[in-house]
Amino acid sequence: MKRKSFETMQCSVAQSLEVIGEWWTPLILRDLMMGVSRYEEMQERLGIARNILVARLAHLEEAGVVEKVPYQAHPKRNDYRLTAKGRDLWLVIEAMREWGDRWAAHGGPPIEIVHRSCGELTHVVPTCAHCGEVLEYGELRMIEGPGAGDHGLLPTRSHPAS
Amino acid sequence: MKRKSFETMQCSVAQSLEVIGEWWTPLILRDLMMGVSRYEEMQERLGIARNILVARLAHLEEAGVVEKVPYQAHPKRNDYRLTAKGRDLWLVIEAMREWGDRWAAHGGPPIEIVHRSCGELTHVVPTCAHCGEVLEYGELRMIEGPGAGDHGLLPTRSHPAS
Repeated sequence: MKRKSFETMQCSVAQSLEVIGEWWTPLILRDLMMGVSRYEEMQERLGIARNILVARLAHLEEAGVVEKVPYQAHPKRNDYRLTAKGRDLWLVIEAMREWGDRWAAHGGPPIEIVHRSCGELTHVVPTCAHCGEVLEYGELRMIEGPGAGDHGLLPTRSHPAS
Repeated sequence: MKRKSFETMQCSVAQSLEVIGEWWTPLILRDLMMGVSRYEEMQERLGIARNILVARLAHLEEAGVVEKVPYQAHPKRNDYRLTAKGRDLWLVIEAMREWGDRWAAHGGPPIEIVHRSCGELTHVVPTCAHCGEVLEYGELRMIEGPGAGDHGLLPTRSHPAS
């Protein structure tokens, strides 16, 4: 069964899924963010089938998230590196990691994050770009933006986002 | 081919993927966060096959992310609502939405977010839980945490996370 593509959906979550939503891909991005850049090391760390890793990396390269950087000419060998577009995915992966820490890491977090500039263990506190206060789920309201067109993206009945 | 489960991986990104990583699931969570609570409305909005939507909702319910709330007794009908564990996923979905806005929303954002308490359009600014400064990707360093055990989770060669 061919999986439905989200590419034509008018939704930025769907566009993001189209790039990173395949099984394994967030773990590949996690490894790239950890500094794993060699195909062989990634394949061994993940325990992923070679053909799947090749396909996932090719998809990420096509989407402009990953680029190949030669590190050896004879024979030709490449590192895989995140592009600016790829590095910009860090908050998606970090939010997944922190949620997993809160709800599934019964032996404590396997990985922790240090903020280099203050030198302390940290996690993400999401704040409002306008007023600077901490953002909480119940304080957010969605409205249609300039890219909404006439499609009626929001649900017709407005339930409270309980 | 049976898809490999990430459940036994000692990684919080993998644990999070195990719950939300299936194709369609982030869009189901998006709709629940928008206040869509009825199966019929969700099915129509997503254009998803009924058996897939049923399976995805059952998986989310089993993981404690979604709960059924009866709204009618005869015949029995349920709303689907996010639990506290499910609402806590908002930053994952929001980070995906904002990345999609930045890199794929050529006609502008389809959806925008208003911060109720200040009343203005907003987006997430990630800040450090310790010092309060804005967090940037290049400022983060990963270390092994108490749940790491003896597995060597970090790559052996420490590349700069360029």
